Amino acid sequence: MSRYVVTGCAGFIGSNLVDRLLADGHSVFGIDNFSTGQRRFLDLALKNPSFKLFEIDILDLDVLRQAFAGAEAVFHLAANADVRFGTEHPRKDLEQNTIATYNVLEAMRHSGIRKIAFSSTGSVYGEAQVVPTPEDGPFPVQTSLYGASKAAGEGLISAYCEGFGFQACIFRFVSILGERYTHGHVFDFYRKLKDDPSRLPVLGNGKQRKSYLYVQDCIDAILLAMNKAPDKVNIFNLGVDGYCEVNDSIGWICEQLNVKPRLEYAGGDRGWIGDNPFIFLDTKRIQSLGWRPKYGIREGVIKTVEYLRANEWVFEMRDRS
Amino acid sequence: MSRYVVTGCAGFIGSNLVDRLLADGHSVFGIDNFSTGQRRFLDLALKNPSFKLFEIDILDLDVLRQAFAGAEAVFHLAANADVRFGTEHPRKDLEQNTIATYNVLEAMRHSGIRKIAFSSTGSVYGEAQVVPTPEDGPFPVQTSLYGASKAAGEGLISAYCEGFGFQACIFRFVSILGERYTHGHVFDFYRKLKDDPSRLPVLGNGKQRKSYLYVQDCIDAILLAMNKAPDKVNIFNLGVDGYCEVNDSIGWICEQLNVKPRLEYAGGDRGWIGDNPFIFLDTKRIQSLGWRPKYGIREGVIKTVEYLRANEWVFEMRDRS
Repeated sequence: MSRYVVTGCAGFIGSNLVDRLLADGHSVFGIDNFSTGQRRFLDLALKNPSFKLFEIDILDLDVLRQAFAGAEAVFHLAANADVRFGTEHPRKDLEQNTIATYNVLEAMRHSGIRKIAFSSTGSVYGEAQVVPTPEDGPFPVQTSLYGASKAAGEGLISAYCEGFGFQACIFRFVSILGERYTHGHVFDFYRKLKDDPSRLPVLGNGKQRKSYLYVQDCIDAILLAMNKAPDKVNIFNLGVDGYCEVNDSIGWICEQLNVKPRLEYAGGDRGWIGDNPFIFLDTKRIQSLGWRPKYGIREGVIKTVEYLRANEWVFEMRDRS
Repeated sequence: MSRYVVTGCAGFIGSNLVDRLLADGHSVFGIDNFSTGQRRFLDLALKNPSFKLFEIDILDLDVLRQAFAGAEAVFHLAANADVRFGTEHPRKDLEQNTIATYNVLEAMRHSGIRKIAFSSTGSVYGEAQVVPTPEDGPFPVQTSLYGASKAAGEGLISAYCEGFGFQACIFRFVSILGERYTHGHVFDFYRKLKDDPSRLPVLGNGKQRKSYLYVQDCIDAILLAMNKAPDKVNIFNLGVDGYCEVNDSIGWICEQLNVKPRLEYAGGDRGWIGDNPFIFLDTKRIQSLGWRPKYGIREGVIKTVEYLRANEWVFEMRDRS
């Protein structure tokens, strides 16, 4: 049994990872500043004596160092996770993704921890020239502040692996779906349809092709990679073997909610500035370690709608943040 | 005639660029904090009424904004430019390269300036899998904090181009040689041979293959690209069509200095942690705009030795910084 740090432990993926690690018998130091994390996501963990919560900000390096003492590896999931609104507050991605990652690496170095898992994103590929996009496709040009900040985090981590003998697993996710999902298109559509089931405003033309992965499949891949990845720097795309159109997803959501809204498209082939209209990652590398997703995109969307229906409180929490 | 900002105006490349822009009849706002820049490099510029010097730190965004007012484009050359010592002070590259570039972009946005030239580096390719390395080769893994911080700067600039309608020329340099050169292997070898001409300690085995470019050729390329580059984000490798071994360079330096030292190799195929033992960039893209370097590597090394011989004061300045 090991002792792990999970940053962003009260977030969507982070809290699911914490529950899994605890269920597997590990100890977890959870770190969150609750800027977007939800205390209720930690209800189970907080009852477990193997879980210790540090309510601190990663930007405070001194405090972070103290929280890391005695851990064996770090799952660094804390981030500003929303790709869409970067131009409204450019400093946010720099601070919460790039500088925060630097702080995590420095705290690790200080504490003698040398193994890190990092939640990067398929957005680092910008508008990928090759689809399905492999990890070593053409050197991309960044199109979003979010993607740029995550790519910067990847670069820092890789340089620490070379310079300080760290080992890293870097995961480039498609969008993740499932329990405790609190932002993204299913969240937005659900909320809009709850307010007015007769109409649904849609960014772009609805034909954007996107890929999604169910959160428990994502966690399976992260844990497998952390156990088996052989190299100093291991980079893995995480996603399913396929994609859907935004229109497909709207259909599944409406079916679940039993509504037939009028679809009002904003038009254009992109949902927002820097939006990549076709996201589909090549996942052969993680599959070569023996991983397969158990759930497809449609099942992920349906599970997400079911979760939101049973937990409408997340909309209120989100509005307050 | 235009009005330009040059950050790092008292540095090696920056001060040469300032002199060129002024000679071409432009106005220049020069920015430097003189942490490594040399006031003497601006002797000529400071006599020119079209030059205005701002002795400020780029990390101070408020002051930076004021200095940018009224300029049409920014040449952002200020940086921590030494690739070798990143692991001794990891925060330096983050602050002086990544965060400083963010500040330059924000000051531009505030001042309505939308065109930027950026001095990146061939080090962003890490240990390139393809040599000669093209701009769109395989997505690299960073091996140095310096390369990581410059790649992060590139990402920020590209995201600002997409998000805020900026246009950028990003230059990935090999090592630059010539007048006002104040760090790197010719500098180090010259100083060591001056202290003791009987022996020369050499990092690695001397067989590292590297490429170099003469500073005036570099400036020709930068100005040509800023005039002719057609895209939103334009990325150019800058270097000569070839490379040399460190041993070749040692031979040229010793010949110029008329010394025959005993060569003492530290051993190994790398000069330092994260050193790329083979740097050779594919420069077809910049050549397609009509640029060719006028000087080869040997001529660049010789010009540098001549400069250092006539300006030994740079060694004393450097020791103090």
